[in-house]
Amino acid sequence: MNYRLTLAYDGTDFEGWQRQREGRTVQAALEQALGRLAGGAAVRVAGAGRTDAGVHALGQVASFELTRRWEPPRLLRALNALLPEDVRALELSAVPSDFHARRSAISKHYRYTLDTQPVQSPLRRRYAAHAAGPLELRALRAAAAAFVGRRDFASLQSAGGSVKTTVRCVSRCDATLLDGTLSVDVEADGFLRKMVRSMVGGLLAVGHGTWSVEALHAALERRDRRGWPAPAEARGLTLLCVVYPPEARV
Amino acid sequence: MNYRLTLAYDGTDFEGWQRQREGRTVQAALEQALGRLAGGAAVRVAGAGRTDAGVHALGQVASFELTRRWEPPRLLRALNALLPEDVRALELSAVPSDFHARRSAISKHYRYTLDTQPVQSPLRRRYAAHAAGPLELRALRAAAAAFVGRRDFASLQSAGGSVKTTVRCVSRCDATLLDGTLSVDVEADGFLRKMVRSMVGGLLAVGHGTWSVEALHAALERRDRRGWPAPAEARGLTLLCVVYPPEARV
Repeated sequence: MNYRLTLAYDGTDFEGWQRQREGRTVQAALEQALGRLAGGAAVRVAGAGRTDAGVHALGQVASFELTRRWEPPRLLRALNALLPEDVRALELSAVPSDFHARRSAISKHYRYTLDTQPVQSPLRRRYAAHAAGPLELRALRAAAAAFVGRRDFASLQSAGGSVKTTVRCVSRCDATLLDGTLSVDVEADGFLRKMVRSMVGGLLAVGHGTWSVEALHAALERRDRRGWPAPAEARGLTLLCVVYPPEARV
Repeated sequence: MNYRLTLAYDGTDFEGWQRQREGRTVQAALEQALGRLAGGAAVRVAGAGRTDAGVHALGQVASFELTRRWEPPRLLRALNALLPEDVRALELSAVPSDFHARRSAISKHYRYTLDTQPVQSPLRRRYAAHAAGPLELRALRAAAAAFVGRRDFASLQSAGGSVKTTVRCVSRCDATLLDGTLSVDVEADGFLRKMVRSMVGGLLAVGHGTWSVEALHAALERRDRRGWPAPAEARGLTLLCVVYPPEARV
């Protein structure tokens, strides 16, 4: 049986999603819990988005196969009993055998949160970045609009990425500022390594007046990551949800 | 000079407010930072509320004296540079010499937060307790109203409390349920040890149907803590603010 799982995690104490030789990762935690439920058999899990160290998720999606057929509510409870407290299984369903969390995804929605108050509340420091001071919201929004469309995002790819093409289709990139909290929402059919954080790094440089919208446009056109501002901090980023075509929902 | 400081902290990794021989406490962290700013002299800090281990604060108030006269904004920045990340100094002002964070306080406002969704978001687990399932909100609210007034709260005092009188004046105790999150707001002129958590423990027992409003009334009248439900978890409790008379504001 093929299963689709929606999960949330606090990324603070994880070395990201993807299993590594060492270090605590969400994929490894999930595979370990599923392995125990599968009576010790190795279970391999595919995740929709390979979130980096420190990045959170409220709607990450994973797919995996189990030989035994489980009632989804029972499997969900059994998983949550085995998973560490900073990972929670939220929804589970049996899906057609061709469903794959990453390959079947149409788009993913990330939100970046930045507190701009002089002093950040200590109850928010794990889930929002902090940069005190005013932002040029109009310029920041104009810059955000520059990302929307089918484009070559080579300038936003961090070292270590190895993909066939750096062309992605960004369907949404907008910014709102409410009570001193900046939220940047980004949706795309796929993301390069640290792409959202690089986008936000560029937007914040524009918002703080150290970079212009024109310079951001030009750097995007150059398709060269040199000169692009540093990626924004991981703690501000959360994978909100993953969209699949209706037929993948069963 | 006498100073009044408003501060926020994430109580998760603290053994509470009050300095102890061992263990990380907020008071000790604050006194250590102030001691460095006072050139190594011992600085003693008074806190408005002695929050327990794991309890948070968004508006705790502390008072202390420094021989040197500081510009408040400069002292605030210097303090935040020395304090650990889970404690933040929010506001500071010079106050008359007779101001004392605890003795001058008129009332304190605590909020208890409980998630009732089947699975708690891992991004909320540090700042809200969790008990899945429906609550009898009407009964819970009737029980909450029973706490309001000038009463002897001896039934709600945890072992280890040693106060002259267990009479306190509770000016507010109400409950709201929004999107599966229960908030209980309590204001009083003072609190006994674990008093809010004991109140919420009683309210949850009523809300979950394991205790009746009448039984709660009777237990309150008996002034005996035996039979009272266990205090609710510390992580759900936050000290929101402390109220002082206008003349103490300078």
